[in-house]
Amino acid sequence: MKEVQRMLYGGDYNPNQWGEEIWAEDMRIFKQAAINSATINVFSWAKIQPSEEIYDFDQLDKIVEMLSKENYEIVLGTATAALPAWMFKKYPEVGRVDFEGRRHRFGQRHNACPNSLVYQKYVARLVEKLAERYGDNPNVAVWHVNNEYGGECYCENCEKAFRVWLQNKYQTIEALNAAWNFDFWGHTVYEWDEIVVPNVLGDAMSYDSTAFAGLSIDYRRFVSDSLLENFKLERDCIRKFDQSTPITTNMMGSYKGLDYFKWAKEMDLVSWDSYPSYNTPWSYVALTHDLMRGLKDQPFMLMEMTPSQQNWQPYNSLKKPGQLRAQSYQTVAHGADTIQYFQMRRTKGGCEKFHGAVIEHVGTENTRVFREVAELGLELAALQDKILDAKTTSDVALVFDWDNYWALEYTSGPNKDLKYVDQIHQFYRYFYDQNISVDFVPFDADFSKYKVVVAPVLYMIKEDMAERLEDFVASGGTFVTTFMSGIVDQSDNVHLGGYPGPLRKLAGVWVEEIDALAPEQRNTIMFNDETIGTTSLVSDIIHLEAAQSLGAYTDNFYATTPFATINKFGEGHTYYIGAQLDQASLTKVLTNVCTTAAVTPTIAEKTALEVSYREKAGKGFYFILNFTQETQPLPQIFAGKVDLLKNQALTQETTLAPFAVLLVEA
Amino acid sequence: MKEVQRMLYGGDYNPNQWGEEIWAEDMRIFKQAAINSATINVFSWAKIQPSEEIYDFDQLDKIVEMLSKENYEIVLGTATAALPAWMFKKYPEVGRVDFEGRRHRFGQRHNACPNSLVYQKYVARLVEKLAERYGDNPNVAVWHVNNEYGGECYCENCEKAFRVWLQNKYQTIEALNAAWNFDFWGHTVYEWDEIVVPNVLGDAMSYDSTAFAGLSIDYRRFVSDSLLENFKLERDCIRKFDQSTPITTNMMGSYKGLDYFKWAKEMDLVSWDSYPSYNTPWSYVALTHDLMRGLKDQPFMLMEMTPSQQNWQPYNSLKKPGQLRAQSYQTVAHGADTIQYFQMRRTKGGCEKFHGAVIEHVGTENTRVFREVAELGLELAALQDKILDAKTTSDVALVFDWDNYWALEYTSGPNKDLKYVDQIHQFYRYFYDQNISVDFVPFDADFSKYKVVVAPVLYMIKEDMAERLEDFVASGGTFVTTFMSGIVDQSDNVHLGGYPGPLRKLAGVWVEEIDALAPEQRNTIMFNDETIGTTSLVSDIIHLEAAQSLGAYTDNFYATTPFATINKFGEGHTYYIGAQLDQASLTKVLTNVCTTAAVTPTIAEKTALEVSYREKAGKGFYFILNFTQETQPLPQIFAGKVDLLKNQALTQETTLAPFAVLLVEA
Amino acid sequence: MKEVQRMLYGGDYNPNQWGEEIWAEDMRIFKQAAINSATINVFSWAKIQPSEEIYDFDQLDKIVEMLSKENYEIVLGTATAALPAWMFKKYPEVGRVDFEGRRHRFGQRHNACPNSLVYQKYVARLVEKLAERYGDNPNVAVWHVNNEYGGECYCENCEKAFRVWLQNKYQTIEALNAAWNFDFWGHTVYEWDEIVVPNVLGDAMSYDSTAFAGLSIDYRRFVSDSLLENFKLERDCIRKFDQSTPITTNMMGSYKGLDYFKWAKEMDLVSWDSYPSYNTPWSYVALTHDLMRGLKDQPFMLMEMTPSQQNWQPYNSLKKPGQLRAQSYQTVAHGADTIQYFQMRRTKGGCEKFHGAVIEHVGTENTRVFREVAELGLELAALQDKILDAKTTSDVALVFDWDNYWALEYTSGPNKDLKYVDQIHQFYRYFYDQNISVDFVPFDADFSKYKVVVAPVLYMIKEDMAERLEDFVASGGTFVTTFMSGIVDQSDNVHLGGYPGPLRKLAGVWVEEIDALAPEQRNTIMFNDETIGTTSLVSDIIHLEAAQSLGAYTDNFYATTPFATINKFGEGHTYYIGAQLDQASLTKVLTNVCTTAAVTPTIAEKTALEVSYREKAGKGFYFILNFTQETQPLPQIFAGKVDLLKNQALTQETTLAPFAVLLVEA
Repeated sequence: MKEVQRMLYGGDYNPNQWGEEIWAEDMRIFKQAAINSATINVFSWAKIQPSEEIYDFDQLDKIVEMLSKENYEIVLGTATAALPAWMFKKYPEVGRVDFEGRRHRFGQRHNACPNSLVYQKYVARLVEKLAERYGDNPNVAVWHVNNEYGGECYCENCEKAFRVWLQNKYQTIEALNAAWNFDFWGHTVYEWDEIVVPNVLGDAMSYDSTAFAGLSIDYRRFVSDSLLENFKLERDCIRKFDQSTPITTNMMGSYKGLDYFKWAKEMDLVSWDSYPSYNTPWSYVALTHDLMRGLKDQPFMLMEMTPSQQNWQPYNSLKKPGQLRAQSYQTVAHGADTIQYFQMRRTKGGCEKFHGAVIEHVGTENTRVFREVAELGLELAALQDKILDAKTTSDVALVFDWDNYWALEYTSGPNKDLKYVDQIHQFYRYFYDQNISVDFVPFDADFSKYKVVVAPVLYMIKEDMAERLEDFVASGGTFVTTFMSGIVDQSDNVHLGGYPGPLRKLAGVWVEEIDALAPEQRNTIMFNDETIGTTSLVSDIIHLEAAQSLGAYTDNFYATTPFATINKFGEGHTYYIGAQLDQASLTKVLTNVCTTAAVTPTIAEKTALEVSYREKAGKGFYFILNFTQETQPLPQIFAGKVDLLKNQALTQETTLAPFAVLLVEA
Repeated sequence: MKEVQRMLYGGDYNPNQWGEEIWAEDMRIFKQAAINSATINVFSWAKIQPSEEIYDFDQLDKIVEMLSKENYEIVLGTATAALPAWMFKKYPEVGRVDFEGRRHRFGQRHNACPNSLVYQKYVARLVEKLAERYGDNPNVAVWHVNNEYGGECYCENCEKAFRVWLQNKYQTIEALNAAWNFDFWGHTVYEWDEIVVPNVLGDAMSYDSTAFAGLSIDYRRFVSDSLLENFKLERDCIRKFDQSTPITTNMMGSYKGLDYFKWAKEMDLVSWDSYPSYNTPWSYVALTHDLMRGLKDQPFMLMEMTPSQQNWQPYNSLKKPGQLRAQSYQTVAHGADTIQYFQMRRTKGGCEKFHGAVIEHVGTENTRVFREVAELGLELAALQDKILDAKTTSDVALVFDWDNYWALEYTSGPNKDLKYVDQIHQFYRYFYDQNISVDFVPFDADFSKYKVVVAPVLYMIKEDMAERLEDFVASGGTFVTTFMSGIVDQSDNVHLGGYPGPLRKLAGVWVEEIDALAPEQRNTIMFNDETIGTTSLVSDIIHLEAAQSLGAYTDNFYATTPFATINKFGEGHTYYIGAQLDQASLTKVLTNVCTTAAVTPTIAEKTALEVSYREKAGKGFYFILNFTQETQPLPQIFAGKVDLLKNQALTQETTLAPFAVLLVEA
Repeated sequence: MKEVQRMLYGGDYNPNQWGEEIWAEDMRIFKQAAINSATINVFSWAKIQPSEEIYDFDQLDKIVEMLSKENYEIVLGTATAALPAWMFKKYPEVGRVDFEGRRHRFGQRHNACPNSLVYQKYVARLVEKLAERYGDNPNVAVWHVNNEYGGECYCENCEKAFRVWLQNKYQTIEALNAAWNFDFWGHTVYEWDEIVVPNVLGDAMSYDSTAFAGLSIDYRRFVSDSLLENFKLERDCIRKFDQSTPITTNMMGSYKGLDYFKWAKEMDLVSWDSYPSYNTPWSYVALTHDLMRGLKDQPFMLMEMTPSQQNWQPYNSLKKPGQLRAQSYQTVAHGADTIQYFQMRRTKGGCEKFHGAVIEHVGTENTRVFREVAELGLELAALQDKILDAKTTSDVALVFDWDNYWALEYTSGPNKDLKYVDQIHQFYRYFYDQNISVDFVPFDADFSKYKVVVAPVLYMIKEDMAERLEDFVASGGTFVTTFMSGIVDQSDNVHLGGYPGPLRKLAGVWVEEIDALAPEQRNTIMFNDETIGTTSLVSDIIHLEAAQSLGAYTDNFYATTPFATINKFGEGHTYYIGAQLDQASLTKVLTNVCTTAAVTPTIAEKTALEVSYREKAGKGFYFILNFTQETQPLPQIFAGKVDLLKNQALTQETTLAPFAVLLVEA
């Protein structure tokens, strides 16, 4: 596989929206920012194929030629994410049908029915032509398939394909009835064509949920698989003509719609688009990077980020001076090998015209935003040999499972405010605050390389997961889980015999009941050392079987029963947290976990700074970032070192202003 | 008619969702709770009739046989509330069309078009087969038709049936134009087929309201009647084979969709499903029981209640220890002769898997919930001879009228926050707090047996209601009504000549104007004795004609005009309350009412406890319940008596903890 | 053109909803209020044309005859706003298709597809018959075409008509692609029939917005034009038979849907319906009157107002005593030559039955509301010679542009809370509070007659507007504009080269970046004189080119950069306000503007009263109104004058209670 030897720095570039006189000006300006990469052709289908029988590559040829001449790394889009108008007009079935049963027409983007044979036919034809034409261009560094795959279709065609998918999975209609517990509410089906896709006109209970979570979860899987088949179709078309260029598609962090762990197996590289809001916590931004890194346990491409503001949020604040730099280094610190922007030149019309860009509407390089982009570009250019492809290692694994995500949020009861990513983030934030590196892993990961495996709200236990967790703990590992874990199997049928089902032995507890707290309600708790705390959301009523209590509720009718426990199991330990703890109480439990498991932070010294670590070829690099709003002292371990970015010596007195960044070799 | 000689204790039981090995275990466990009843076959149509021509009763036979052998009282569902998938596939017209004009497909439940001849044909065939097969089984104690009738259909079929219904009602198109005031906005119709059902594509002004309340109200009546015809169809099919078993269907308290007083006339028994939320006031829970008791002025079946938590509310809190018992006795105190749960064994999949059950997912009797269920079961078993079929008597009648409910809430202006059940509850709460028993009565009730008739927001005055109220008051009765009363006739046309229209003479007032207060606005008032209060929502501007003022507004431009009045009329009195009073002011007026009418509470002593009274065969029973959150002293009238539940002597020092219950013979 | 010689006083009158015995009673009662006008036949199509081939004018003849005999000025409706049921039944295509693609049926009103040839055919037939029959009746004072034109249709018919409209506008498909920047997201179209109307099934991003503002704006223009064609069709039908009676249709203030400046050119008279809510600021009520006056720069008809309460608002408060009078004189003060009510007699059924009326449901003249109506009527009758057709003159012009309204609110980013009319009102309120008269003008007005032209958020600069503004300022005018100005051209493509685009030279500033503030965020500012203020919503980062700073931000990263500027340009000045200022700061800037431009208030004396001025035939009249909640002193300039309404002498001690009104000759 072709490997890029430099850190890509550039982004989405749409010269087709501009006259050619602008192109030369672009090249001139970009050079000042050490830009070396451009993502092109993402939305050009209508331009390349103006009608069913005509293809016209003239303009794209010119763009590729210019970029090649300038020695850009070209990230080449396949242009299949926005269908040409003629296709909708001639073949209305290419349009998706929404959850309300409405067939969509030409408009927007990302709206092709994934199971439309018409769509698939024209995609394959287009992508093969592109691969044949550009696949051997050495400047084509990466193929960018489609764009931000997502969404759902509920058309008749998808309904038929879903039934086939179900037949493959369940083999018999009896197995399907059992999996979905279709005897409930008299839903028993006898023929495959009696199955109706989940939608407002069928089993929906609210927008996007139905009376049968098993059905809904399987539809999610089917949709994720259908879109993945679209991706694979394009990939395979490319591979007919180009065996060496890496192929990716841009993902979206914790996006709910697609099982990204399954997708990543089919991709050469993970790439993704990072768009935090003005008030997104930096811990959450880090979480999404780590999740994307975890998909293949490899460095990733940052495919899109805005250099200044966005347009589609309610309040599109500017990035403050230094923020772009700090955010970029955080991205690299958590595993990125590229920094790419959306967009290189601000579009002049359409809904994204207020989205930030390297070159803004004023059209010159004389802007604050451009200066910050240029400074960063020059810095990265000097840095790339050191960092490119550096690895991250962690003692802590955090399980992220899309099946679980869907199942947990489809479930009716006990508390509608329980959200998967919020729960994940609450745990992640502890490790982030402590500067303890975390790997995100799938449910079927090899746990043995970790000291601690954390799986909050592990609602769905499927396949041999419980056994593998038992092996992990028995061998000395530390496992942490919570309320609403071990409840259901792959199709949302409850594991009978007492919660937490298959985890009961491992956790050494039986959860008799699960109380729900309304937003205005709190329970109080007391740790064994008499520290006081509060809980919210849900409360397990726990019976100790083999486990020991870490503390007990002090009010409600289950006062004196444990809210959290530890269980010695073989050589290791399981922590079970039976309620949503306030952040201080959770910190207390997780500090206990880290002590038990001998997990230590990236640097021993306490600091409010974010400190991350990547290593390559025997060398280690610390990324030191100030995301607080106050100036912070340098951790003394770094005094006497040199900041590789500014090539400045660090002393005991060095301080970091907000958004300051240091890079220090270990 | 067959009469059950014991208090039914059991609930919804779905052995068809489980293997037969579980059935025996169920029987063993249920016995420990003195369970004697099971509701079966509620959602089994697809199981019984797997295709259009095949019926299969094998499993149901086994279930009935087992339960009969165990001498259960069987509440036998007719299984018609969830249609089999094959029926939707073959006859799509059985699916409802919603307010947005969309035909629904297979999914959920309660979604058959009530006017579909296909649906009616297969319902009749199924129910006749069931009645023929099980009607003479002596253990079949009650027929449970369909399930929680409700919802609406707006299909072409219903539209045609609606036009026929209208022809029967109005005879001529001129009468219909007059009734709906169709000259307004040029709506005059000349042919019956010009009438369009109310819906989003027609006259809708918001979801479920239209520009013509007369049309909307008539459609509500038509839908209620259409579903009632469905019930009667099933009832009559049963009666072909079984003349002696009582027939019911489960109702839903203050559910808006159906005119339950009209329905009750067609039912042998009223049964209903009670699902308060974690924060529902206990006065409201009592209200719904009293309303259900009032439908036939008879004891009712509690068909469903959860033994622990629910799943479909936003926050599904557990019942606290003792709460199940207290709630059950409240139900009995207000007229129930059964306690039945949904559900007997927790389903393992589908949207209700987190709904509480007698046997939970752990599958054993060793749970707090089961222990509470069992203790209650044993208590009730010991009690039933005393209480079964005991009567309640009241001096106070509270008018509840579905036509009025619909009309009041369809009306555009003066204040969108005016809700019928809120208004009813505000009055009910006074009597509840005072331990004064209340009967809910329909608009055409015999008022002569009451001392006081209360009819808040009696917006619609139809038929001879005004005359009958005049007779009641003239003969010495006390009538209480409020703002927004006497405004319109049966089709929402205003009674011209000054508000409150037909009640003007009776109330002795003319209401010249009706002001609306926004949520942030209040008026102040002063009673004749100089007590101060506040009003909100709406303010009548009242002219005294024959009435006397109880006090006046003290601000706004109508300061000095009365906010409430009393009118001597014949031998009796009418109170008119012209504004939404704060609770203390309303208490003051209603205390005045009770004094005037010589209405006294169940016990004379002041108490924060709920004290109710039922009597049977000359014996009276007091139900004493503590729904406060503090321990309460025993009313001294009961000192020296015995609590029949625990068989314990009560003393002057006896106290009642929260959720404590006493049953004392008078 | 016929000219009415008296001030119309009356309103919407629907005798067709009542028996003829009521008509005589109406005449008797109305006379007591000096009512001289009635608007009839607004919703009578179904009555006049009961089926496709039958017309029946009997009842309308009688009504016209009665009113003529009583010498009423008849405002004759054309009855085309509510289609007869038979038309929907026979020709379903007359119904509109909504934004969700749903064809509507018979129901409501204002729902005819404007491009339906069926609708147009029957409209023309009806209106010609009306014009022929009643056009020469001397009592027909004004034609009232249709009613409150508005709404949108998205049907296939409209889609086809839209494509023709686009062809006329853009000539070539290439020009259309360029105008809408259709290369963005691969939207390039090659055939006209590939264009899809904006709707949920197409390019919608939210209800009523799409990914392409250019498309959405053009559709707005097309819909406004389509409805205007409907109006012109009716107008031209009338003119075939009646060349002398003025023709109007009733407008709705700042209603977004129609380009009223374009409409007014086709109308003989502007008329409109004024329905403030209980909490609408009086400055906003005045704004809408001034806007309506500005449409033709002429006095207008107040076609509808409620004499007491409304029915369709959430909280329909009563008008307080005196409020009707004060509100009416405010209307006249801002340019009205009529006071007309909706409605003359309260309808007894349908959704407006709780809407106030001259005669209420009680049916008599003995009501507070009638008495206030009658007092006002007698006052106006005595007054009309003086005021009728009096003119208003202003030194200040406020630009209001519907294209700009649409474009600004369709734009995605930077801040979703930015609303056009809010911004206009914020500026208007300053002038209102200072009693400085303001004219609303279109973007293509003759600015030369004004001292100051104010154009807040002048987002769209089209045609030669920038040049004309430059001429205005160069000649000594003062121009005021704000953030989000000068951004785009007619189709929402950005004016490249730096904000504020075509206004950059005139304002002497370059706006490098536009920050968005979330609702919880504020920036602080300091004027050059050290006065402190705050800003919200958006913040421009301004570079002074030729302009001078009025003050600077004092926090955020752009502290020390200007928030507002003044630029000397030729003989005049441009003020640029780069952030949403708090009201005190805006007052400070605008006071500066008025000083610069030598603009003075209607009276020099400071007062909390509203003081307006109209003049006629060399005489001037001051309208002095108290809309505060406290009694206010008389401005001393009026001491010694006479109040023409009550014919009372005014002294230094005269005070005005809330809602008091004085009319004083200059």
